[in-house]
Amino acid sequence: MKNLFTFLLTILCFSTLQSQEKQSPPNFIIIFADDLGYGDLGTYGHPTIKTPNLDRMAEEGQKWTNFYAGASVCTPSRAALLTGRLPVRSGMASSKHRVLFPDSKNGLPASEITMAEQLKTVGYKTAAIGKWHLGHKEQYLPTNNGFDYYFGIPYSNDMDKISGKDYWDYWKQPDDSIKTEHFNVPLLRNTKIIERPANQNTITTRYSDEVVSYIKQNKDNPFFVYLAHNLPHIPLFVSDKFKGKSERGLYGDVLEEIDNGVGKILSTLKEEGLAENTIVVFTSDNGPWLPFKLNGGSAGLLRAGKGSTWEGGMREPGIFWSPGRIKPAVVSDIGSTMDLFTTFSKMAGAELPNDRILDSHDLGPVLFEQKESARKSIIYYRGTEIYAARFGDYKAHFITQGVYGQFGEREEHNPPILYNLSHDPSEQFDIAADHPEMLQKINELVAEHKSKLVAGEDQLADRE
Amino acid sequence: MKNLFTFLLTILCFSTLQSQEKQSPPNFIIIFADDLGYGDLGTYGHPTIKTPNLDRMAEEGQKWTNFYAGASVCTPSRAALLTGRLPVRSGMASSKHRVLFPDSKNGLPASEITMAEQLKTVGYKTAAIGKWHLGHKEQYLPTNNGFDYYFGIPYSNDMDKISGKDYWDYWKQPDDSIKTEHFNVPLLRNTKIIERPANQNTITTRYSDEVVSYIKQNKDNPFFVYLAHNLPHIPLFVSDKFKGKSERGLYGDVLEEIDNGVGKILSTLKEEGLAENTIVVFTSDNGPWLPFKLNGGSAGLLRAGKGSTWEGGMREPGIFWSPGRIKPAVVSDIGSTMDLFTTFSKMAGAELPNDRILDSHDLGPVLFEQKESARKSIIYYRGTEIYAARFGDYKAHFITQGVYGQFGEREEHNPPILYNLSHDPSEQFDIAADHPEMLQKINELVAEHKSKLVAGEDQLADRE
Repeated sequence: MKNLFTFLLTILCFSTLQSQEKQSPPNFIIIFADDLGYGDLGTYGHPTIKTPNLDRMAEEGQKWTNFYAGASVCTPSRAALLTGRLPVRSGMASSKHRVLFPDSKNGLPASEITMAEQLKTVGYKTAAIGKWHLGHKEQYLPTNNGFDYYFGIPYSNDMDKISGKDYWDYWKQPDDSIKTEHFNVPLLRNTKIIERPANQNTITTRYSDEVVSYIKQNKDNPFFVYLAHNLPHIPLFVSDKFKGKSERGLYGDVLEEIDNGVGKILSTLKEEGLAENTIVVFTSDNGPWLPFKLNGGSAGLLRAGKGSTWEGGMREPGIFWSPGRIKPAVVSDIGSTMDLFTTFSKMAGAELPNDRILDSHDLGPVLFEQKESARKSIIYYRGTEIYAARFGDYKAHFITQGVYGQFGEREEHNPPILYNLSHDPSEQFDIAADHPEMLQKINELVAEHKSKLVAGEDQLADRE
Repeated sequence: MKNLFTFLLTILCFSTLQSQEKQSPPNFIIIFADDLGYGDLGTYGHPTIKTPNLDRMAEEGQKWTNFYAGASVCTPSRAALLTGRLPVRSGMASSKHRVLFPDSKNGLPASEITMAEQLKTVGYKTAAIGKWHLGHKEQYLPTNNGFDYYFGIPYSNDMDKISGKDYWDYWKQPDDSIKTEHFNVPLLRNTKIIERPANQNTITTRYSDEVVSYIKQNKDNPFFVYLAHNLPHIPLFVSDKFKGKSERGLYGDVLEEIDNGVGKILSTLKEEGLAENTIVVFTSDNGPWLPFKLNGGSAGLLRAGKGSTWEGGMREPGIFWSPGRIKPAVVSDIGSTMDLFTTFSKMAGAELPNDRILDSHDLGPVLFEQKESARKSIIYYRGTEIYAARFGDYKAHFITQGVYGQFGEREEHNPPILYNLSHDPSEQFDIAADHPEMLQKINELVAEHKSKLVAGEDQLADRE
């Protein structure tokens, strides 16, 4: 009897502690891969890339199967994630260049509010680890965009190429002659270059280790960590420990090193007693860079890849993890990286800006209450042009266009072509003729969107 | 102290019971889907088909990612599974017809030893539930091939078509006018027709329920159940409970009904205390029937589908489950349905036949000891011709040919085309020129195979 009493008391104390914990502002960690395909993780169907940590994260959490990046290439996709807004609004999508380059003059406008700035208003510690690609000049760097701390490279790992073979031919098959020294990419701590060229062989593990240290040092505050790996974007590099480890070859080695880092981060959260009060999200900026063949990833059953507005260009793995808080599920509701802005703001108690349009929905009801997603639509931009739009199960393509010499020329479709993505995820069977009502609905949605759109001044156009 | 003693005693008793249980001959259940694609389950990457029971089975067990059917169409694939031999040996592969039809004269020769006959030699109870397709005349039925009990249809569910729209056009999109009455397929119990036309709307759940009953009735004996669903082979039918349930449409409804049955079977095993002493395997006979569009499945990132010797035709989900006995893992070693013959025989203590060539390896070391698979190769037959062969990571295609008007004409390749399937699961990048040593190795393997091959007399050729 006494034993039973002690037992019940323990349960009671534990429950109280738990519910208190849940009420304190949670930590947020976003792990963002670069050019990862929808089909590249074990749990999303890859046969030979072994991602046990991400697989377990998906089993213990929510695995989203209709989760989208905000654009099909780096710069606009990152702007979308951090601002909760379509990049056309911030001027981070352009009709002239697809992304920022080392000679680009501009970056994310100061008037934009990043997720880090948002969370700082309610006392969060904030860190950006990894690739930035929203402006490499000092005023555009993370430390001027709401992050207390930055450790990473300012743009893509293939920029600043100074030697070695020709870029395009070269990458079409794995080649040991490719060295990290051929890419004069700087590594920054806050605003200072601490290494150039950045040693890309060790960079993935260094990023993950930085996050582990940051968690340990900041565990008494609510914190937000944005870990943006610059891989598996080509050129591919791995540390010695992972070289030759994966059955999938070099691309697999890289992913297995990223997966290992995910394991370390989740273990740290568990060891530090933070797992239940931290939301970890894993996703990627856009689909696989297919012309690089075996150095690029796989979109699985989805059509095309990076750069395109077919599903393979923008639909990504989306894994949400917080043991006890997020109930395990496979979620096929629609979500977007842009939704993290509102979702995290609400959880943290940060007031949403009311002076601008956000393209961001609160995913909280799906994550914590098994309710439907508030997001019902996706607008697929290529640069500053709308190529496609999804409403519910249906996606209309107004324009289709291949990328990098693959998947066909630019083609305008009037009437648009229409797919039911739930029935036909590979976008194979046009059903426009059978569903005029859906075309009309999507046309109305796009017209409504356009009528309110004020495009930001193009920040990608000017180069030195 | 007394409590501690009782506790330790309980643990001790339980462990002893467990290890005794492990030494008694295990039960075997094979759940065999029909025309299921590699990419059709949640855990193999499908975004909208919800298969929570199969996903959990994969998480709790081993998920094989290089697991093959013995052929790319029904009849030879089933012969391969049950005999542990390439169907060319038994005459169940033919140069004239791909499968058996309702007017076929023959079936699996009596001289062949089925897995059921094999297990009966060591006292197993045996049942075949579902589609047979190894001869519908009485002498060829399951009850004359080692099974104590049979409940199912003798050939494919699209045969015996007696009314309704034209077959090919008709199935290209889901159509509510298609009725189970249009197919005069008989349902048999043992050798007697008990229903004709079989009510295919309810058949999937009836099969699963038969297995549940069989388990309960035979739990005191070692048993072997071969559950061969006749779906998701077209025509697709579901019971009312599952109609319209899946986001994927009718095809998804069918799979979700199959998944539900898997859940019932695994629950029954747990409830009856048999889970630890039963090996459950889930796989399929061949890849998705792609020309049927949304009524066919998806091979995910694999190329082509049913009928072809591309990976999409023969590589299948392969899930092995036995809590406590099989340690959870993702296994990318090569395995085949033909290996179940030897694997089960060894576990059951049944002596392997020594008067014939088996194409069957013991997978026990992979399942129970985390060792490498003994199987290193796959020979891909189309009918009685070798089209391709895999050794280790490498697959050479000697002949490629599309199916049902898709994926190109028959083409002979000399030299063969070569893929590294671990790097390139989608068979996109021919590397024959870089790996003459692998071509030579595979040529030797095929020459060795041919030198010992005695093809069985064609059992599929004769029709009435």
